Amino acid sequence: ESEGKVAMFDRGFLIAGGVYEVSAVINGKLVDYAAHMERLGRSLSELRMGWPCTRAELDTMHHELIRRNDLKEGIIYMQVTRGAADRAFNFPKGETKPTLIAFTQVMNLVNNPNAVTGVKVITTPDLRWSRRDIKTVMLLAPVLGKQAAYEQGAQEGWMVENGHVTEGTSSNAYIVKDGKVITRHLSNEILAGCTRRALMRLAKEEGVEIVERPFTPEEAYAADEAFLTSASQFVMPIVEIDGKRIGGGQPGPVVRKLRELYLKEAGA
Amino acid sequence: ESEGKVAMFDRGFLIAGGVYEVSAVINGKLVDYAAHMERLGRSLSELRMGWPCTRAELDTMHHELIRRNDLKEGIIYMQVTRGAADRAFNFPKGETKPTLIAFTQVMNLVNNPNAVTGVKVITTPDLRWSRRDIKTVMLLAPVLGKQAAYEQGAQEGWMVENGHVTEGTSSNAYIVKDGKVITRHLSNEILAGCTRRALMRLAKEEGVEIVERPFTPEEAYAADEAFLTSASQFVMPIVEIDGKRIGGGQPGPVVRKLRELYLKEAGA
Repeated sequence: ESEGKVAMFDRGFLIAGGVYEVSAVINGKLVDYAAHMERLGRSLSELRMGWPCTRAELDTMHHELIRRNDLKEGIIYMQVTRGAADRAFNFPKGETKPTLIAFTQVMNLVNNPNAVTGVKVITTPDLRWSRRDIKTVMLLAPVLGKQAAYEQGAQEGWMVENGHVTEGTSSNAYIVKDGKVITRHLSNEILAGCTRRALMRLAKEEGVEIVERPFTPEEAYAADEAFLTSASQFVMPIVEIDGKRIGGGQPGPVVRKLRELYLKEAGA
Repeated sequence: ESEGKVAMFDRGFLIAGGVYEVSAVINGKLVDYAAHMERLGRSLSELRMGWPCTRAELDTMHHELIRRNDLKEGIIYMQVTRGAADRAFNFPKGETKPTLIAFTQVMNLVNNPNAVTGVKVITTPDLRWSRRDIKTVMLLAPVLGKQAAYEQGAQEGWMVENGHVTEGTSSNAYIVKDGKVITRHLSNEILAGCTRRALMRLAKEEGVEIVERPFTPEEAYAADEAFLTSASQFVMPIVEIDGKRIGGGQPGPVVRKLRELYLKEAGA
């Protein structure tokens, strides 16, 4: 970790010209990996960036990272940038060699104690740029939102724009009302979560209705349940939003069921 | 240049947690340097980041960069990040050592041929985050705007939001109508340009009225003159916007006068 370096002129460092993916590992196996690679391809394409290597080589890299770090449970972070070039706003003339870095983090994902107690969320203004569908490293807005959440004793910030929740600073946002799951529809305004996608499928198979539309913080306060999804948190119950207890302050039946389904599919 | 490296775990690289300044050098002397350092301090403060060293040490670094590179005319780029830490959205626990990098670029600033002919501009949607007053490295939106401009044979993109021009992708935007200069007022929506600030003072001294308010692309098309300011372009005439000739396609008297005043003050 202390030896990994990138060029000072890397466009990832100088102009945030990079995209990334985070894949979970359970029992030494990648979770939702194909979806992450598909999204990586889309992010690269939207920014007219090239792949750093073949998809097969990326697969090998992920497996080697698991093997060499003896990773049983945690995440693999990977980032691709346009590479190093003389600093200028316009794209470099001629091809640059994309930069690829990756590392692992050991995490307690399956038996995350937060999943038992549920987490607290605050709402915070959504300050991000207009292309949140691209998973770039331009993360200062979510970073400030997450930090605000931590400082208020919460674990996540739900970002609010034009009176509606867009998503969490590093997760998608859901509420449950009268047995129906409500989550914002996909657009440029939110990231198309890989865990979200898997959850949609599992919920459908289980006969849980999901309504895709924006919801307000006030709707969330009055919800029966609330939860978030992300690659490293899977399906995570929320028991408090802006200091208001949700569902009596306990993870509810819908979110517990959905987490169970997700963990089962993920090989936990 | 090829040897300059930063840590792979630098928050400038992983989450775009960095701010920067670009100072011009003319005849081996820094231009508007105090204003740039003041703005750096503000950017750091807004993001709750620390100074990488004392202001005096930064001054010495700038002068050493000029001396060692024998820089007569060009720019000094400097960037400060929160430093390296385990990747997480929330701020690292405990102090991190800020990263400081800087380099020079030789440029033809005073006798920039674009200043004689004027430049072309296109308008492009402003996709940026809400805190453009902080000079962060989260530059993908302006990068895409600048690239679009280049691909359409223009040199700059004027970003448009809610029907009004905010600023250029790397410059502030101005039009001249009936002898008055019109430029957007300062707010979180644009960067408080150091060249803008100097120009405001010079214009006032010269008796040129500057009206600070948003303007539309349509107003710009019908303007007598248009121009931009930036640390490396100083005061730069614009002769075409979205394919429409401004002021007969020649730099007008107001912008020529203002450029002359600025160059004189800058020691050109």
